[in-house]
Amino acid sequence: MSKIEGLSGFPEYLPNQQLYFNHLKELIASSFESAGYCPMETPAVEKITTLLSKGGIDQEVYAVHRYQDKSEKTEAELALRFDLTVPLARYVAQHYSSLVFPFRRYQIAPVWRGERAQAGRYRQFYQCDIDIIGEEQLSLEHDLEVLMVLKKTLLALELKNFSIALNHKAVLMGFLHSLGITQEQMIGNVLRIIDKKNKISRETLRTELTVYVNTIQMQSIDALLDLQGNNESLIEYLQHIASGHELLMHGLAELQRLLELAQLFGCADVLKIDLTLARGLAYYTGIIFETTLGDYPQLGSVASGGRYDNLAEKFSKKRLPGIGMSIGLSRLFAALVANQQKTQHASPAIALIAIQERAALGTYIQLANQLREEGLKIELYLEHKKLVQQFKYADKKKIPFIITANQQELDANIWVLRNLTLHQESRVPLPDLVLRLTS
Amino acid sequence: MSKIEGLSGFPEYLPNQQLYFNHLKELIASSFESAGYCPMETPAVEKITTLLSKGGIDQEVYAVHRYQDKSEKTEAELALRFDLTVPLARYVAQHYSSLVFPFRRYQIAPVWRGERAQAGRYRQFYQCDIDIIGEEQLSLEHDLEVLMVLKKTLLALELKNFSIALNHKAVLMGFLHSLGITQEQMIGNVLRIIDKKNKISRETLRTELTVYVNTIQMQSIDALLDLQGNNESLIEYLQHIASGHELLMHGLAELQRLLELAQLFGCADVLKIDLTLARGLAYYTGIIFETTLGDYPQLGSVASGGRYDNLAEKFSKKRLPGIGMSIGLSRLFAALVANQQKTQHASPAIALIAIQERAALGTYIQLANQLREEGLKIELYLEHKKLVQQFKYADKKKIPFIITANQQELDANIWVLRNLTLHQESRVPLPDLVLRLTS
Repeated sequence: MSKIEGLSGFPEYLPNQQLYFNHLKELIASSFESAGYCPMETPAVEKITTLLSKGGIDQEVYAVHRYQDKSEKTEAELALRFDLTVPLARYVAQHYSSLVFPFRRYQIAPVWRGERAQAGRYRQFYQCDIDIIGEEQLSLEHDLEVLMVLKKTLLALELKNFSIALNHKAVLMGFLHSLGITQEQMIGNVLRIIDKKNKISRETLRTELTVYVNTIQMQSIDALLDLQGNNESLIEYLQHIASGHELLMHGLAELQRLLELAQLFGCADVLKIDLTLARGLAYYTGIIFETTLGDYPQLGSVASGGRYDNLAEKFSKKRLPGIGMSIGLSRLFAALVANQQKTQHASPAIALIAIQERAALGTYIQLANQLREEGLKIELYLEHKKLVQQFKYADKKKIPFIITANQQELDANIWVLRNLTLHQESRVPLPDLVLRLTS
Repeated sequence: MSKIEGLSGFPEYLPNQQLYFNHLKELIASSFESAGYCPMETPAVEKITTLLSKGGIDQEVYAVHRYQDKSEKTEAELALRFDLTVPLARYVAQHYSSLVFPFRRYQIAPVWRGERAQAGRYRQFYQCDIDIIGEEQLSLEHDLEVLMVLKKTLLALELKNFSIALNHKAVLMGFLHSLGITQEQMIGNVLRIIDKKNKISRETLRTELTVYVNTIQMQSIDALLDLQGNNESLIEYLQHIASGHELLMHGLAELQRLLELAQLFGCADVLKIDLTLARGLAYYTGIIFETTLGDYPQLGSVASGGRYDNLAEKFSKKRLPGIGMSIGLSRLFAALVANQQKTQHASPAIALIAIQERAALGTYIQLANQLREEGLKIELYLEHKKLVQQFKYADKKKIPFIITANQQELDANIWVLRNLTLHQESRVPLPDLVLRLTS
């Protein structure tokens, strides 16, 4: 007999948790579709050459090969996707002529990374991505649509206390240019250190920076890191230092325009400029953003994204600019599930029909069918057990209602509806039953 | 630049097809949940030892290993699941003490098989499974519930012309016993040949059978294969030959009881006894069934299942009997998609809001939000393009409606609603807009 244990890093849920997970997935999908994003599903595997073309992540890729092809193993052709962006790039390049642009797609799906297992690190986890891909540079309104969809999605998940940190690559690069830091590799080194600002002490950060910057540059970076204030005051600060620095002026202008548009798109309240936000700048070319939850700061960013100039440069001669974001559902779920009342039900059913008179089984089945046709989810208890055991079953699964009837009640077309939450019982005819269960 | 081509055997859909695929998936999930089946999701990978414990299928298993662990490759620990039954068995054994029995679960998910690619054979394909697992032998009513859910699910998919071929292991085995074929391996050989009855000619079948059966036995098997008639006449036939043969009597009694229950469960009309149906008899212990579509006979069985005595014998000392079935969605989809009108839309949106007055962008966004709050899926066109190009975009994606307004109409709170299917245009105030789009 094989020993059974869970696979470390591959989360799997009990029925009550899975119901809640699916509920969240549906809320997210519904929010994405509400704004016209089209579902996409790519195979779990891609060619290994496709995946490794992005570089940097090959340490974590799970290669896939047919078990019987032992001899072919050194040339595994396939691998599990490690994100949803590379498959999107491959998909758009491959199906380019069949797609209509701007192309809005979402994908909610697991990805796999062969990380060494550790707390909070998954080897299989869900990402929920939206992207808008253009055939030409997309207008700034698209950035705001993505941010608006992100805001609405988090609200749909009943997360209220969140903020989206926003920066613009041109602002950050322009700032460094204005300090005289213009050499590409130098910029990369400095930004990599600034990006760690929440993970290391300011002292360590300064020590690391001194390798690349002089004292005057350090003072300016320090000042930027110390900046407090609302969006208006940060814009003012930029206006103050931008004069004469073309890239910074450009970034500032876009940032200002984005904040204006944010008013129209109704998401100005959650956008918080963070001039030191420095994520994924090798890939992103316009705005970048990260989302943190006030109630779950330990999660770090639960949704992030940005604007890019060229999605599929590895796969297509076409320049495909776009903007996108990704919500990390698995990590979010792990935090939410601990605090949710909604995870108690171990059945999707709102009611269990208990069979009190075995000889009248057909009548109970008929009731189940009638209620199901009203869109209600109904379990029928089909084991030949006493009523008390049927009740126990409903109770264990936390099914909210039990419906049953004895022969006398069946003859009178009356059903007994028992509310297991309120411990109330009432005798009602069929039409009232539907009303009571749907209200 | 990497050359981009689809992976053979790994289907991937364009937006219009994906929308239809998801629609079918949702109909199936909704039908399963309607009867109280709980969603389950297991990781895509299992331990390779878990998967190979079923035996027989190791030729097709896709092994998974971290790409960097080149030296560990000979001991790949993980593999992609090849069906949803082995993961269910592992799940129930692992989480036994946290589950409530009878345990009804469904899983709609891809599985992977490293078959040599050929037409109609997928390497990644969807299965849609329901099972009811008991802690003790489940009553026969459960068999009928599964068949009823299958029937309702196919009806939900708008498949009307289908029939479910039904047999019982005890009937088939009892029949062979009655012919004096009682030795286990002999029975296996004979059934394996009978199972091929729709794939090989009767002559070939006879030739293969003569290795194992004598002339008198062959005549009886021939007679069984030739049997025509409705369920009643087949039951009569069995009554005629069963006398004195215990196993056959038992199977006949169960089959009769099942047909009685089928009346109560409303699925007697689609059940068609097939006394030579001989699928998966090494695993199944009670009823077995297969479903064929009258309009798509070339698909073979699109849904099959049966009753088993011991789901998880490899993983648990507990005897876990149950009944289940699996719908092969990917194959079904390939047939359905060719004939469907529903696959024309390349957006989930019912309407595109076209921006006629850029300066009034906020008003169009507000409209989008109002309509989305009514549950409508709405795309906003955000590129700075002429109206005619915005219309072309909607037309290419086959979005049913366009909504727009010029400044004068905006001032008068009037929207222009254009039905792209009927080529009709009307000018309506907001409340009517909602009505027109939801009706």
